Amino acid sequence: MARIITLLTDFGTADGYVGEMKGVLLSAVADAIIVDITHALAPQDVDAARLTLARIWRRFPRGSIHVAVVDPGVGSSRTALAVESDGRLLVGPDNGVLSPALISPGARVVSLPIPPDAAPTFHGRDVFAPAAAALARGRSVDSLGTPFAGAIVRRTPEPRRLDTGQTAGEVILIDRFGNAVTNLAGRRDVVVEIADHKLPLQRTYADVQPGEVLALIGSAGLIEIAVRDGSAAEVLNLSRGDPVLTRHAYESIRLTR
Amino acid sequence: MARIITLLTDFGTADGYVGEMKGVLLSAVADAIIVDITHALAPQDVDAARLTLARIWRRFPRGSIHVAVVDPGVGSSRTALAVESDGRLLVGPDNGVLSPALISPGARVVSLPIPPDAAPTFHGRDVFAPAAAALARGRSVDSLGTPFAGAIVRRTPEPRRLDTGQTAGEVILIDRFGNAVTNLAGRRDVVVEIADHKLPLQRTYADVQPGEVLALIGSAGLIEIAVRDGSAAEVLNLSRGDPVLTRHAYESIRLTR
Amino acid sequence: MARIITLLTDFGTADGYVGEMKGVLLSAVADAIIVDITHALAPQDVDAARLTLARIWRRFPRGSIHVAVVDPGVGSSRTALAVESDGRLLVGPDNGVLSPALISPGARVVSLPIPPDAAPTFHGRDVFAPAAAALARGRSVDSLGTPFAGAIVRRTPEPRRLDTGQTAGEVILIDRFGNAVTNLAGRRDVVVEIADHKLPLQRTYADVQPGEVLALIGSAGLIEIAVRDGSAAEVLNLSRGDPVLTRHAYESIRLTR
Repeated sequence: MARIITLLTDFGTADGYVGEMKGVLLSAVADAIIVDITHALAPQDVDAARLTLARIWRRFPRGSIHVAVVDPGVGSSRTALAVESDGRLLVGPDNGVLSPALISPGARVVSLPIPPDAAPTFHGRDVFAPAAAALARGRSVDSLGTPFAGAIVRRTPEPRRLDTGQTAGEVILIDRFGNAVTNLAGRRDVVVEIADHKLPLQRTYADVQPGEVLALIGSAGLIEIAVRDGSAAEVLNLSRGDPVLTRHAYESIRLTR
Repeated sequence: MARIITLLTDFGTADGYVGEMKGVLLSAVADAIIVDITHALAPQDVDAARLTLARIWRRFPRGSIHVAVVDPGVGSSRTALAVESDGRLLVGPDNGVLSPALISPGARVVSLPIPPDAAPTFHGRDVFAPAAAALARGRSVDSLGTPFAGAIVRRTPEPRRLDTGQTAGEVILIDRFGNAVTNLAGRRDVVVEIADHKLPLQRTYADVQPGEVLALIGSAGLIEIAVRDGSAAEVLNLSRGDPVLTRHAYESIRLTR
Repeated sequence: MARIITLLTDFGTADGYVGEMKGVLLSAVADAIIVDITHALAPQDVDAARLTLARIWRRFPRGSIHVAVVDPGVGSSRTALAVESDGRLLVGPDNGVLSPALISPGARVVSLPIPPDAAPTFHGRDVFAPAAAALARGRSVDSLGTPFAGAIVRRTPEPRRLDTGQTAGEVILIDRFGNAVTNLAGRRDVVVEIADHKLPLQRTYADVQPGEVLALIGSAGLIEIAVRDGSAAEVLNLSRGDPVLTRHAYESIRLTR
């Protein structure tokens, strides 16, 4: 059975770094099914990589291998990891990018040895692609390295409950459409407050007029701020980290009276 | 026989939306051959998506499945379509993006049911990828939904014949190289008039000097305005919709005398 | 055994040109394994394409087919090439893009015929993809055309030894991270001089503080100028062609005293 190997990097494609990784993989595993997740992450944006991995890693069938390389610490003493979690196998640097798999119950984690001839600036090619190829050929995670405790986990900040009865969250991601994804779990009975707007939750973009700001529950279950046929990030000048509040809709109505 | 499934979206790749779709497809059809057409369309640019689909859909062998998701109306009452046309199978929103297949004689069109748990903002993952997977597993278009008449067809505007003897067209697309593709069918005996330039048709870019403006018949059979080793869109400040005229070359010579 | 066909172009993906090529390939060779190297090269940047090809072409297993189309002279009298070199097969225009394979000992080169109905602006679809498909179906390079001597070879400029004892090189590429790759082979005992900086060679980015400029030996064995967690191209305002000097570290120390 051919093995799926997905690639998630901030390398772009033009310089050939991704091409080299694909060559290493296909030279070792001729029938690997290589799947590009993305190579367009902002350089060294570990948090964006982590959030993208969170969306995709369990969408692939068990046995799939995910290679996630956003790696500002490449070649330093940071550990290289292989992880088995919920039936999927992952390799990547120990900087938090693999957090979604690490925090899943039962995750097994090993530290990968760094071959002496690995280029200190390109472990994607010389450490992680060979490890993924070994997994695709049937090696177990355990057999590739030594058990490793204390892998770095990065988490999306938790919303806080305020004395005012509001819940305080923040923008954790601006997506390609300019939608501002927050860390607030979607609940239909809240009003969202951001940048002087008070927004009841809509179902979808088309529930408002073109150009209008709205809030809705996005496809990962989190509250998003959007502009129909436009970019909320531009219209409201939003950035990652900007504060967002929610208040129970009933409370909001009562206070407005 | 493994089935080809192509993907054409405006999602970019960094946010993982495309990755999720690929995961859904490969979880349902382990041996699907997934082909990226593009994820770099300008957000919500249905016309560009339609023109890109027009170029590619019949280049793939019969039995191929095309997933085209540029979908500003996602989650609204707009219909979700599956189409069988000229032996290819297509899924996408009912907003004109599938027009090239819809206008082909003998096209069969069904309206897809929207599962109640589909995210109202991401039918690519929850409606179109599952429908494509079902087609890849051998389901017929007819079996996936109910027959649908009146699907939205968007067409490239037709050129008009003027009293002056000229034909009036327009720029329908600026491509990556800055070439301005028009809606004027290529004919070798015309002179092209655009932005104060009168251009005889050349065969290829190298028929003029570097930096020079030229007109030629592009690879889809339409007249294009180009600049050798440069961008016609920049040099002539061209945008989609800008007017272009052609006149029979003989007429043009006669009038110039 | 399914054949690997890699694609390396400056076409972007949005216009469908790459999609058309993939359709042509899969229509002719249903089980081809198509691998995107990149479509994001700067338009008509033959040197960048050549350097990217240099990184990847031998990383793929013998029998792989590389399609490299950065082709400002398309449709002119420039020759279309097929090459067999070190067990890999390559097709592309005769403009230097295939140089890495051409200069490898034992390379065989043929001139491909141009079909009369090939679009003069899109040999990627009408010449190179069909040639790659023929190779994937088992045709030999020799059988596809006529032997061709004198293919254009472009080379990275050689560093020069100066009377001062320094070696003079230049920046040959700015990569996605803003690293400036030079034509100077990495040797650990040199000091790098660029834009008023004198930089000893580090092992990797993390060997300096964030924001600090450094020099190191990159993953292709060439000296690179980088900024930790930043862009050397921006910080030092570097472009391709900018001069870089190296001096033996011992000499450098002696002179500084």
